[in-house]
Amino acid sequence: MGDKRYYGVDIGGTSVKIGLFEGAALQKSWSVPTDTSDGGRNILRDIAASLPGPADGAALAVPGAVLPDGTVNRCVNLGWGVCRPTDQFTALTGIPCRVLNDANAAALGEQRLGGGRGYQDVLFVALGTGVGSGVVLGGKVRSGARGTAGEIGHLCMDPDDTKAQCSCGLTGCLETYCSATGVVRLAALAGRPGLTCKQVFDAAAAGDETLGAVVDRSCGILGRGIAAACALIDPEAVVLGGGVALAGEFFRAKVQRAFERHCFHACQGTEISLATLGSDAGMYGTALYAME
Amino acid sequence: MGDKRYYGVDIGGTSVKIGLFEGAALQKSWSVPTDTSDGGRNILRDIAASLPGPADGAALAVPGAVLPDGTVNRCVNLGWGVCRPTDQFTALTGIPCRVLNDANAAALGEQRLGGGRGYQDVLFVALGTGVGSGVVLGGKVRSGARGTAGEIGHLCMDPDDTKAQCSCGLTGCLETYCSATGVVRLAALAGRPGLTCKQVFDAAAAGDETLGAVVDRSCGILGRGIAAACALIDPEAVVLGGGVALAGEFFRAKVQRAFERHCFHACQGTEISLATLGSDAGMYGTALYAME
Repeated sequence: MGDKRYYGVDIGGTSVKIGLFEGAALQKSWSVPTDTSDGGRNILRDIAASLPGPADGAALAVPGAVLPDGTVNRCVNLGWGVCRPTDQFTALTGIPCRVLNDANAAALGEQRLGGGRGYQDVLFVALGTGVGSGVVLGGKVRSGARGTAGEIGHLCMDPDDTKAQCSCGLTGCLETYCSATGVVRLAALAGRPGLTCKQVFDAAAAGDETLGAVVDRSCGILGRGIAAACALIDPEAVVLGGGVALAGEFFRAKVQRAFERHCFHACQGTEISLATLGSDAGMYGTALYAME
Repeated sequence: MGDKRYYGVDIGGTSVKIGLFEGAALQKSWSVPTDTSDGGRNILRDIAASLPGPADGAALAVPGAVLPDGTVNRCVNLGWGVCRPTDQFTALTGIPCRVLNDANAAALGEQRLGGGRGYQDVLFVALGTGVGSGVVLGGKVRSGARGTAGEIGHLCMDPDDTKAQCSCGLTGCLETYCSATGVVRLAALAGRPGLTCKQVFDAAAAGDETLGAVVDRSCGILGRGIAAACALIDPEAVVLGGGVALAGEFFRAKVQRAFERHCFHACQGTEISLATLGSDAGMYGTALYAME
């Protein structure tokens, strides 16, 4: 008898990352394109066709809200409405299956194996096109009563800034300042349109004063948002991931300074670290979730 | 063999509320004055002397930070420094004892028996001289890695309002607008000094426009803070207690409207209710904690 086999399946809008684990060890990983045609009806079939054999369990990470009973409440980027992908996956493969939100999967991966390693209570914040987030408490994902636990991206950081229009319908959300899209928006407002987020950070690091102020504003708002999150969730550590966090220590140190300026005194010392698993975090997290 | 006996002991700066429970039923309750002389060294002795016999367990609620190992990290209002009151209580009485923060005790009481009844995940906010708070998740108190979980009082609600000086050292904290002290401060800023919080609410309810605007501002900021807390903690229900909440439905409805204006769409529908146990919440909560 060998170790048990698990599949971790992280379904993104462009591709699906799949890992085969034996025990806790990754044996191989691959990806398949995400076919969003026909309301995404081929996605699970394509995943199933790529699997190299049976397994003892699997978990799917999806870019949408997951209710406590495993119902997925719309994944706009996949073309899915309300559905139960676990039932379909098990019907196709015979493998028992769980499902969780993709940011929660990445949070679990980073807590167990990445930037949050060694901590049981971790807030993970992914700063990409939008801001995703997940909370792990006592080593378990906490989704929350409505699946929003840790949803730092939609904290109102400036109720008077009606120009900061968020895709969620509110204004002044943290996401409008701190996502990659938000950084690009702030740069354009500062008279420097047409740059990527990476270009803004690179220029700031090279001494550009205007873009340095843009980066300071974005990181300052993120630090203040993390201070709010720590007062409310009080994790042991906060892990920053996503494309914006690729700016590395230059970025992390600015966020940490802003956090320390705004945080409740008892939260001083909360560790703020960078994610280490990159785009594999969700694949690791789903496999860990399957093993639970 | 009768039911097991427990003492719930809620230690406040002025008096100590004590309840004797058999099974889950309150048999009697009484209070003793809090003797803060001599660094509060007589408090536990006075409590012990008032107990009508042995018991199977007890819990103490204290107005200060409680570390995960039961060490109390200063209770300014009792005169206590860093100490282990459970050890001393057990030495005096022979009764096994636990300790928790007083707002957390009240949160547990309200979740199980009061305004949060029927929910497992509850955020409790006590709006008194300051703003206390506690989080119950899955029916258990969550103190957080540093004892601040749910600490809504020190969310920064306006980073530019340097006049809103908080006792914690920061400015713009929710407490400076939404505690009873904060309401009085806002009234004074609006040209109406010397009023109590109750007078401000009563006048607002009676149609005073200036004080109505003060109440709207305070409730608006509280609703926005609760929106932030719900995005991050995502409880099933929020329970409002403390002296400010005695303004009742007039207050609750304003907070709910502001919450709905600012909350992330998935959190719409989170119940916001009034506490029902009043100043007994902590006594009930400590007894429930002793029984766990």
